[in-house]
Amino acid sequence: MLTGERPTGPLHLGHYFGTIRERVRLQQAGVEMFLVLADYQVITDRDTTDNVRENVHGAVLDYLAAGIDPERTTIFTHSSIPALNQLLLPFLSLVTEAELHRNPTVKSEYAASGRALSGLLLTYPVHQAADILFCKGNLVPVGKDNLPHVEMTRVIARRFNERYGELFPVPDALVTATPEVPGLDGRKMSKSYGNAISLSMTPEETVAAIRRTRTDQERRITFDPEARPGVSALLTTAALCLDVTPAELADDVGDAGSNALKTVTAAAVNDFLAPMRERRRSLAADGELVRSVLRRGNERANAEAEATLDEVREAMGTVYC
Amino acid sequence: MLTGERPTGPLHLGHYFGTIRERVRLQQAGVEMFLVLADYQVITDRDTTDNVRENVHGAVLDYLAAGIDPERTTIFTHSSIPALNQLLLPFLSLVTEAELHRNPTVKSEYAASGRALSGLLLTYPVHQAADILFCKGNLVPVGKDNLPHVEMTRVIARRFNERYGELFPVPDALVTATPEVPGLDGRKMSKSYGNAISLSMTPEETVAAIRRTRTDQERRITFDPEARPGVSALLTTAALCLDVTPAELADDVGDAGSNALKTVTAAAVNDFLAPMRERRRSLAADGELVRSVLRRGNERANAEAEATLDEVREAMGTVYC
Repeated sequence: MLTGERPTGPLHLGHYFGTIRERVRLQQAGVEMFLVLADYQVITDRDTTDNVRENVHGAVLDYLAAGIDPERTTIFTHSSIPALNQLLLPFLSLVTEAELHRNPTVKSEYAASGRALSGLLLTYPVHQAADILFCKGNLVPVGKDNLPHVEMTRVIARRFNERYGELFPVPDALVTATPEVPGLDGRKMSKSYGNAISLSMTPEETVAAIRRTRTDQERRITFDPEARPGVSALLTTAALCLDVTPAELADDVGDAGSNALKTVTAAAVNDFLAPMRERRRSLAADGELVRSVLRRGNERANAEAEATLDEVREAMGTVYC
Repeated sequence: MLTGERPTGPLHLGHYFGTIRERVRLQQAGVEMFLVLADYQVITDRDTTDNVRENVHGAVLDYLAAGIDPERTTIFTHSSIPALNQLLLPFLSLVTEAELHRNPTVKSEYAASGRALSGLLLTYPVHQAADILFCKGNLVPVGKDNLPHVEMTRVIARRFNERYGELFPVPDALVTATPEVPGLDGRKMSKSYGNAISLSMTPEETVAAIRRTRTDQERRITFDPEARPGVSALLTTAALCLDVTPAELADDVGDAGSNALKTVTAAAVNDFLAPMRERRRSLAADGELVRSVLRRGNERANAEAEATLDEVREAMGTVYC
């Protein structure tokens, strides 16, 4: 199984409830997992790799703190695996430019970027196919947004197998019904909106971020995402941490007003994150840990990618010496 | 300096007079040269890699027979150099899809292919930039057709340097005024037109190919490519081999007619190619030679590509462990 993130900032509650918790569950269930820190995807829609190293190191700490076990799960960085990246070339020959253009995720990310479409953004679904297929991934957990990527990967695997002989599994999407975690303003939680509670915040920063949420004067707390986005975002966030429903929590807070809700939410989030943050602190104390996790992960990913590339060369008849 | 070929068939006189002779000259002059057998370019406009191994092995023998010295010139195969291929990814982020589309060579190859535009054909100018820049090439010998590729490479080198710091030379095109060698039908000499005299033909095959040339009944031999394409193609071919002008040769043949011209041409070509063919035969007798040339060439190219990729990672800040 292949999953991963663009290392564009600290991981937050949206990542945790959206995917990381599920990954930890799958890991415990014995699924062989590759976790890519997709650093080349950082430059699909921006001109700089500023802070990419600290974002990668932070994400590794977040993963470990959240329960990803680097002995069982291979954590690696994209740009460190040449044989994986090389797969982009034969795979690009298997798709047409028209198919690349039709990809809805490319279209929407292009629209959101407000820039000219870069060659890397246009081709990144093919690069994602390489991510999935280099480790012969047969299961890809995705949100509904990303189904078109898995479909493109399936097309590429099928066409390669038809042309050069059976080599790749045709992977299935594992559509996870994970809760959408709203940011503190009711929009999607996202680093770029500045509405996120990151795993690595201090309790004080968490309280301050929650206090800044724009709510309303209504004493009675109700769950109504349309009419009361701030109040409802707080309810959803706290409810996830307390493992209750937002409506139940609203009833509990009752007529106590927004300030009380903020206090409840801050406590819920900080209590929930406390053990992870404690683990993160003690892991971060070992200055060599992240580097050695990535060293081993990249070694494993390189070995896997080189073995697959050798099979690809054999299948294509491009073994010369 | 970087040059190379798509290994889609045996090298012919068009390659020899068009580029190989010039490469041998530059090699003797001490220019450090990388010679790529661009096997991934084979699948930009076709669905198969059939015969690619024998085409690659044949091309290496042709190069050596023509005077390329594998101790001084690095001969390598594209698909064997992962760190070179990886450069495609950061480079794709530096160009827009619109720029890829504007490339005249992509346009004309797309039109000639009669197929849907593949992702690999669309992006191959960027891949060529990786070929040129992986070895810090600062000189690219090209025909006028390929100037847009060098221009794209220059754009990529400049943008990379602006964004991440000075790393790549901005290469210059070396536009060589080499003679266009017509095929035996007067069109461009090309494997795909079946009008080529390949270096590896036997003298008998060469005579037969020349005899098949469509000429005319006119006894007087004149150089007139428009009106007499067959006769003129023979004159050009023989003249190149004899190092005279086509008009001089036409005067020599005089009123002897097309058959005599064919006899003169066949003798000129076979005499010219005899030492190369002799060398080729004796090199081919060593069944291990080509493999060992490619092994060493690929080792050198890999070392160069890995060193460049390390510098790229350093410049982009993507060194993690």
